[in-house]
Amino acid sequence: MATLVTGDLDRLVQILARLPGLGPRSARRVALYLIKRRESILVPLAEALNLAASNVCSCSVCGNLDAGDPCSICNDNRRESSLICVVEDVADLWALERSGVFQGKYHVLGGVLSPLDGVGPEDLNIDTLVTRAENPEVIEIILATNATVEGQTTAHYISDCLENSKIIVSQLAHGMPMGGELDYLDEGTLGWAIKSRKPVN
Amino acid sequence: MATLVTGDLDRLVQILARLPGLGPRSARRVALYLIKRRESILVPLAEALNLAASNVCSCSVCGNLDAGDPCSICNDNRRESSLICVVEDVADLWALERSGVFQGKYHVLGGVLSPLDGVGPEDLNIDTLVTRAENPEVIEIILATNATVEGQTTAHYISDCLENSKIIVSQLAHGMPMGGELDYLDEGTLGWAIKSRKPVN
Repeated sequence: MATLVTGDLDRLVQILARLPGLGPRSARRVALYLIKRRESILVPLAEALNLAASNVCSCSVCGNLDAGDPCSICNDNRRESSLICVVEDVADLWALERSGVFQGKYHVLGGVLSPLDGVGPEDLNIDTLVTRAENPEVIEIILATNATVEGQTTAHYISDCLENSKIIVSQLAHGMPMGGELDYLDEGTLGWAIKSRKPVN
Repeated sequence: MATLVTGDLDRLVQILARLPGLGPRSARRVALYLIKRRESILVPLAEALNLAASNVCSCSVCGNLDAGDPCSICNDNRRESSLICVVEDVADLWALERSGVFQGKYHVLGGVLSPLDGVGPEDLNIDTLVTRAENPEVIEIILATNATVEGQTTAHYISDCLENSKIIVSQLAHGMPMGGELDYLDEGTLGWAIKSRKPVN
């Protein structure tokens, strides 16, 4: 691209191509889209990026990203402090918030244990979780890591860390997803659904 | 999202979701990716956007986007001024430049004729093309619009506009793409390939 277009446009394409889900082709498409809509989207995007860069920070209590520290969820007195839901990433916290079913507090690990990638317990926010668990206000910790090998290993490790506390440690239910059809489900999910079957009341 | 996250992060996600190829989910993913890599990508992206907003403009000769007006291609004396390649969009100009086979000048229409979308000849850079064609230096105009109905209609319209000039008006060859397998080609392409067959020399 260097010889084709001006340095400024070229640099914009190069940076856009590094975003997740965008390759060189879609980065070029986005760059042209932005340049053609200067006032309606390019300038607002640049402003939003600058605002986010200067205002958004990580919550020292739970690891969530927000404008203040502690974050608005940790500061919200209407939410139950007795329940802490442990998630891998802020995106998972957002997903749970969208579902609107959880009214407790969160704890964002910032990843999962992955020896192959060199991620050990010291790289995750596990120490701070154990410290939070010592607060007598906390009654239950829900491990809401992903249903992947790494997610389940991490959940296992955390439940071991919390073994000595008198806290209830629970995990998300596993089974058929809503709208799931048996014919299309993998064996692992079907196995879970059978093993965790419940009496029809 | 409004209740979940800070206004700044929320606004960033909303703007990102308006970019082509990004939906709400990928916009959230990109926003988190940016926030976590503040110095390495968020700040450089904001700077690149600001630079592009203030420096990149449309070339008054050919319609290309570049830092100067006329653009670097129009200003390049090593390129042949006798050949003008007409493309729909700047992205098509970039594609041709990447192939490296064309050494003439360009003319960017800024779209295609599309009565259903209300795009008529007056909305495209056709007047300026006809004016450029009056320059005796110009010998040939290559119509490189897409091989779609709209692209071909537009090419037809332009060749009608240039009928009275003594210029050669040509069109890109149609046929099998490189690496194409007959079994997977559509009938239209096969038809073109048969009709435009060439003697083996």
